[in-house]
Amino acid sequence: MTSLRLRAEPLTHEAFAPYGDVIETEGAKHFSINAGTIERFHDLAQVELGGEGRPLISIAACNQATTLPCPVPFVERHPLGSQAFIPLDDTPLVVVVAPAGDEVAPESLRAFVSNGRQGVNYRRGVWHLPLIALEQGQRMLIVDRGGSGDNCEEHHFRDTEIVLTLPG
Amino acid sequence: MTSLRLRAEPLTHEAFAPYGDVIETEGAKHFSINAGTIERFHDLAQVELGGEGRPLISIAACNQATTLPCPVPFVERHPLGSQAFIPLDDTPLVVVVAPAGDEVAPESLRAFVSNGRQGVNYRRGVWHLPLIALEQGQRMLIVDRGGSGDNCEEHHFRDTEIVLTLPG
Repeated sequence: MTSLRLRAEPLTHEAFAPYGDVIETEGAKHFSINAGTIERFHDLAQVELGGEGRPLISIAACNQATTLPCPVPFVERHPLGSQAFIPLDDTPLVVVVAPAGDEVAPESLRAFVSNGRQGVNYRRGVWHLPLIALEQGQRMLIVDRGGSGDNCEEHHFRDTEIVLTLPG
Repeated sequence: MTSLRLRAEPLTHEAFAPYGDVIETEGAKHFSINAGTIERFHDLAQVELGGEGRPLISIAACNQATTLPCPVPFVERHPLGSQAFIPLDDTPLVVVVAPAGDEVAPESLRAFVSNGRQGVNYRRGVWHLPLIALEQGQRMLIVDRGGSGDNCEEHHFRDTEIVLTLPG
């Protein structure tokens, strides 16, 4: 058993581009609507709905907070659709991702921590740690795919002990 | 010119059912995921995407707050898709709606005010006041339809002066 320490980096569009979208106003295309009273930051994520899927709007709430450092025993992917998480109470998200593909090398994993106002959208097939939350009660909006078909696969790390940490 | 005073009622699933969905955890179907650490409040809104539409995720931010009482000179409808607004900072939303249909009688209008944690999803074709916000900087997530086609129609109230007020 080898071990690997995975330190979360600040979440940016550039760094996250291979995995999906960062959902935030900063740097986004925007325009005024409703006589200038509202600014619309437009089309911030590619929602993917394969295999006769339909979009679902759901809310995730944290029953039990995760304390970092924490283990990363496995990752999952959704072969049929994208999956977006947007914080509803300005609380940072910590994510672990690896590129889409049939294999997942532990060395290919990257971790990111958001600034509390950023959401993420995992592109279809991108490997990721199932959702964790740092604060009890923390709420996140989910936009993902509903419909028939097997839309979740897991990859377990049997030979590497991976530990996720925050920066600093 | 006649006048009509429209007082916002508390937003509930029952009262809003003719117009669309209330997006909130209270009263929603839910189940545990990720080894019980997260509760998923599932499939809270019917996202409608007519005419080769695709779902858009956007953010609205308030440039200029609306002070109530305020006039309701017109309402709009989106014949091709639903439109959801979910508050990102626990700030109440005030909405004005009328049933889908080719005519809009001023007497058919109803107004609702949310508790700050509730979002709304307007069903396709439901008449509504364009988005207003009560606080400068207030942010809301939008899930609506992108794609070709004329997806916005307005109805102006020329014979009735409508004033929207908060309860109490």
